[in-house]
Amino acid sequence: MPQLSRTLASALFIFSILLSAPASAGNQALMELLKALQENGTIDANTYQLVKRVAEQESNAAISATTTQINAQVEKTVAEKVVKNGKGNSNVTVNTKGKFTVKTDDGDFKFRLGGRIQTDAASYAEDGLRQNDGTELRRVRLFAQGTLWHDWNYKLQYDFTGSGINGLQDAYIDYSGFKPVSIRVGHFKEPFGLQNITSSKYVAFTERALISAFSPGRNIGVQLGSHGKNWSLKAGLFGQGRDGAVADNDEGMGVSARGTFSPKLAETTRLHLGAAISYRNTGSIDKVRFRERPESHVTNQRLVDTGSINADDFTRFGLEAALISGPFSLESEYNYLDLNRVNNAMPDLGFSGYYVQGSWFITGESIPYNAEKGTFGKPHLNSIVGKGGMGAWQLALRFSSLDLTDADINGGEEQNLTIGLNWYTTPNIRLSANYVNVLNINGGPAAGDEPDAFQVRAQVEF
Amino acid sequence: MPQLSRTLASALFIFSILLSAPASAGNQALMELLKALQENGTIDANTYQLVKRVAEQESNAAISATTTQINAQVEKTVAEKVVKNGKGNSNVTVNTKGKFTVKTDDGDFKFRLGGRIQTDAASYAEDGLRQNDGTELRRVRLFAQGTLWHDWNYKLQYDFTGSGINGLQDAYIDYSGFKPVSIRVGHFKEPFGLQNITSSKYVAFTERALISAFSPGRNIGVQLGSHGKNWSLKAGLFGQGRDGAVADNDEGMGVSARGTFSPKLAETTRLHLGAAISYRNTGSIDKVRFRERPESHVTNQRLVDTGSINADDFTRFGLEAALISGPFSLESEYNYLDLNRVNNAMPDLGFSGYYVQGSWFITGESIPYNAEKGTFGKPHLNSIVGKGGMGAWQLALRFSSLDLTDADINGGEEQNLTIGLNWYTTPNIRLSANYVNVLNINGGPAAGDEPDAFQVRAQVEF
Amino acid sequence: MPQLSRTLASALFIFSILLSAPASAGNQALMELLKALQENGTIDANTYQLVKRVAEQESNAAISATTTQINAQVEKTVAEKVVKNGKGNSNVTVNTKGKFTVKTDDGDFKFRLGGRIQTDAASYAEDGLRQNDGTELRRVRLFAQGTLWHDWNYKLQYDFTGSGINGLQDAYIDYSGFKPVSIRVGHFKEPFGLQNITSSKYVAFTERALISAFSPGRNIGVQLGSHGKNWSLKAGLFGQGRDGAVADNDEGMGVSARGTFSPKLAETTRLHLGAAISYRNTGSIDKVRFRERPESHVTNQRLVDTGSINADDFTRFGLEAALISGPFSLESEYNYLDLNRVNNAMPDLGFSGYYVQGSWFITGESIPYNAEKGTFGKPHLNSIVGKGGMGAWQLALRFSSLDLTDADINGGEEQNLTIGLNWYTTPNIRLSANYVNVLNINGGPAAGDEPDAFQVRAQVEF
Repeated sequence: MPQLSRTLASALFIFSILLSAPASAGNQALMELLKALQENGTIDANTYQLVKRVAEQESNAAISATTTQINAQVEKTVAEKVVKNGKGNSNVTVNTKGKFTVKTDDGDFKFRLGGRIQTDAASYAEDGLRQNDGTELRRVRLFAQGTLWHDWNYKLQYDFTGSGINGLQDAYIDYSGFKPVSIRVGHFKEPFGLQNITSSKYVAFTERALISAFSPGRNIGVQLGSHGKNWSLKAGLFGQGRDGAVADNDEGMGVSARGTFSPKLAETTRLHLGAAISYRNTGSIDKVRFRERPESHVTNQRLVDTGSINADDFTRFGLEAALISGPFSLESEYNYLDLNRVNNAMPDLGFSGYYVQGSWFITGESIPYNAEKGTFGKPHLNSIVGKGGMGAWQLALRFSSLDLTDADINGGEEQNLTIGLNWYTTPNIRLSANYVNVLNINGGPAAGDEPDAFQVRAQVEF
Repeated sequence: MPQLSRTLASALFIFSILLSAPASAGNQALMELLKALQENGTIDANTYQLVKRVAEQESNAAISATTTQINAQVEKTVAEKVVKNGKGNSNVTVNTKGKFTVKTDDGDFKFRLGGRIQTDAASYAEDGLRQNDGTELRRVRLFAQGTLWHDWNYKLQYDFTGSGINGLQDAYIDYSGFKPVSIRVGHFKEPFGLQNITSSKYVAFTERALISAFSPGRNIGVQLGSHGKNWSLKAGLFGQGRDGAVADNDEGMGVSARGTFSPKLAETTRLHLGAAISYRNTGSIDKVRFRERPESHVTNQRLVDTGSINADDFTRFGLEAALISGPFSLESEYNYLDLNRVNNAMPDLGFSGYYVQGSWFITGESIPYNAEKGTFGKPHLNSIVGKGGMGAWQLALRFSSLDLTDADINGGEEQNLTIGLNWYTTPNIRLSANYVNVLNINGGPAAGDEPDAFQVRAQVEF
Repeated sequence: MPQLSRTLASALFIFSILLSAPASAGNQALMELLKALQENGTIDANTYQLVKRVAEQESNAAISATTTQINAQVEKTVAEKVVKNGKGNSNVTVNTKGKFTVKTDDGDFKFRLGGRIQTDAASYAEDGLRQNDGTELRRVRLFAQGTLWHDWNYKLQYDFTGSGINGLQDAYIDYSGFKPVSIRVGHFKEPFGLQNITSSKYVAFTERALISAFSPGRNIGVQLGSHGKNWSLKAGLFGQGRDGAVADNDEGMGVSARGTFSPKLAETTRLHLGAAISYRNTGSIDKVRFRERPESHVTNQRLVDTGSINADDFTRFGLEAALISGPFSLESEYNYLDLNRVNNAMPDLGFSGYYVQGSWFITGESIPYNAEKGTFGKPHLNSIVGKGGMGAWQLALRFSSLDLTDADINGGEEQNLTIGLNWYTTPNIRLSANYVNVLNINGGPAAGDEPDAFQVRAQVEF
């Protein structure tokens, strides 16, 4: 064999070694020698074949064995030297990318700690009633949330702007083992309304629309829920409030149910339809009151207010519709409340309200929809301030109306127009500015009043 | 050498390679060649032996060196790439299996975050006084707890159902460096009573027995403690309450001490005996009041109540006995309170109470006893709901009595019978149902009243 | 070649293998054989050189490939088997050495959870007014703090000794992306005063000096800050309080600014100079009150108190100077407050106060100075109790004065002398004893009173 071809062959050999290494160490050189020895007749063909076969087989075995040894060593070292799961039989993932979460890799256990801070400032162009300019910590919350033994979940959330037990938000246990039905027990939001169920962090405006006057809020209860890919259904039985009943009054009881249907019309287009009903008797307290701030919370003034009404029970009805198409959204809700007086001679009362709003992500994001809950969620940003981007910018416009006047009750009727701007600088931080124009007040404690409010919010969630 | 034997030998070689790999890569084939070369006379015996020896030695060296290299590489990569302990000199374990805990492997530092939610509902069969049906968040707590520099521990626990500083539960520092004595400073439970010291999560009923009226609760103080394998002893000096003293009143002071002895009678049988004394003067406030709900907390009614008594000081005496034998337990406590009036002409007062209770884990679990603290703890479940089991089921029966009538004080005397059922679905979740039958009320604000209470609780701890 | 030299050579070979292993497995033996074959003429020089070269190159390639394989295997195993960062693209460090912190290695995200407990007891040698002996949970705080997307920080801190929203301490967002300026929005301390900005955990005495009467405290606002290696500058615009304004009152507004300069005079010697101004109008409330406890907080008595003053606005001026030299420190502040009455006919008022204090770490530690904030911090201990040391011991002496009397306002003038001892047993725990001697009270509600206070504190931070 000429020198050249040998050199070429050896170059190819070396190249193939670079690809097939490592366990063949020594094998290629050996094969060269073997070939040379056979060529010059030192060894016969049988010997050549035998040695070659052994070399190949031991090379494969060595690769496999080396891999096995490395794996074993890695696992041993990792088990000894690094952060590990306490009881050791399943592994733990720690995440702090904007959300502190610890979970086992089998999904059986999870622990999450988080919170939110909403700092507000507002200035009012007063008309009749004085509206008080100023600042406010709107919500300052911490929560702990987790999964236990796969099928059980809990959440404990407290708002430090509340006083004592009144600051308690969520405090419940979920059981998801009876699929497709899940059970919730504790203190949580009654299932009613789209803006009511959607987190205050993701409502398009700094305050929910005027029909919040009808919101059942959170109560202690038991709820059954189920959902599919584009529908959800929840129904629950609820007591009243967080605390044991006061003095010699039995608590009132409520029943609420909400269903949603949300077909995906196109890749980026989704329709949401919802309906809810919420019945409540007033227990032995027999009093109820509906009133609402002018979609701004720094002020304590309620421009519409029924005052205290003697009521046996009342029923809320709610209809919801929304359409999300890429960066655009349209959303509307209508609520009607029917109330039975304690004195049967007095007429039943009917109050109602609605809102229509639209929003547009100038920067192209879309409002995410959670079909399992029938709520809106946190947008996924296209860019982040501090990471080379400008964040997400959202414009929103809302018309809302509330009528608390009926029969002898002169609570007043209010119409507001609100324009809002949200700037999500990062997925964790949202800066908002809202201008609320009270268009008209008919009757009630602030009849004829038409104040404006300008308010800003800095919000962080973690 | 015939072809057959060569083939056989080579097969054996390959087998041995599979066992002894990896670092012998190339060696076995080389040995084959070597043997062939010696056999056909190409090399002499010396050369054969030298090459063979070198091959063997380098094979061993390579194995050792590969292991060393792998170890070094693993440690380097692990140090660079994965979750690790901040300061690096000891390793951290993260656990989230029902309890979120982070600790260093040397035990010097530990951080634990947890909490509990107890949601109650109760319905009353009223007799005389109105009892208010309803729901309640009974306890909603978060705590942070940890070990610092090995010998120091702390705990901070808050109950969000309380108002402001009144929601503060534990807030203390422990020092365990003066073995066998440990020192505790801060706000914590005075050492008195078995049911009092046992966590509300593990008391067999939803509420502690009537003698809770005598419980000293938590106060700010200093406590010395020691314990052995089957005994514990604690004694402390305490102020009054959590807050600075009000107006121009000096706080009252108290001294409490408790000792327990708990011999193990058989493998699954343990006896508990305890005694405690708790003296308290009333400072410059001079007022004290003893009263108690009917072992149900949703109602605010106290069926027995001494009203405000002018007192200089008072002393509580407590005796405890319990027997745990496999799934069965028997438990009893007796309390006596002796009170000195401000007006020495008025007679001393004596109030007392006791309870006797038994419990049975139908599913075979046993109540764990913590001999170092002289308390009961959390049962270890035989099976878990959601992991193929039915959880643990416990039946309990309690008779309890409280006498708050003496001399001119007509606080009333109450006897209750309670039957309870606990279902630990998982180690973290307990569902309870209790039926309390007020058997008799002699005297006091609710003389002759005999209401019943049915109450349920959903409890999660994490 | 003689046998001896061969044996020697093989020994050297083996030694070199032990150093250069592992990937050369089989190569050295092969080289021996090769040399022997060339020497006895079985192969020619060309073959010898070719095989030798191949052997060398494959040996290098194998070393590199083995390293590559080990690295890949380690990363794969680590990714599968151990605690890891959730989203995976940056790694997480968990620290629990006295502070629970989780952070990504790129510094973009951080989560920290911590708190403090301060338990006090105090006894008073009364003179005129009654001072109430007793115990107190002085501060019991939890906080969550973090970094989000590198440039954003937040802090949420609550003090459980407060009532509802009044317990809220820090609740803010920081943005540091506009270097060298950082922006803070939320509820936090107005920039004013050295002892005011320094954490209560590190103030040399259990309570701050009498001029705390002038402290602006925390308010909702926006602040700009910048700093260099030995200077800091902060200025902010603030509202009033945490809550939305009450009734029909507009909130007052304030502007505060503080600058510090802190040249390092020698290796262990640093000078601190500071000046601050804080203007505040009283909004539509028009009332203000200045008063202060006698540098002891268990008592509720204020020995100096202006009572309610009708004021339009007031301005605070502050001067600060401090010198730290090794274990010694000297510190002084002077505050002056100028107040404009609502009734212009009434004279302006001027109140003032100052303190001078010195401290000495007997055990040689030094008070750390944070030039970026212009505050004092936590000392680095030379030894730790429980780790063979005695901790750090610090002695401190303070003279302080406050004059709240001017024109028609007879708030009184107070001078105190305080001696304090701090024992840092570990970096997390500080035990303190203070003796406060009220030297003199001129005028005001407690004219002529000269009580003493002895107080102790157990403090843990985590």
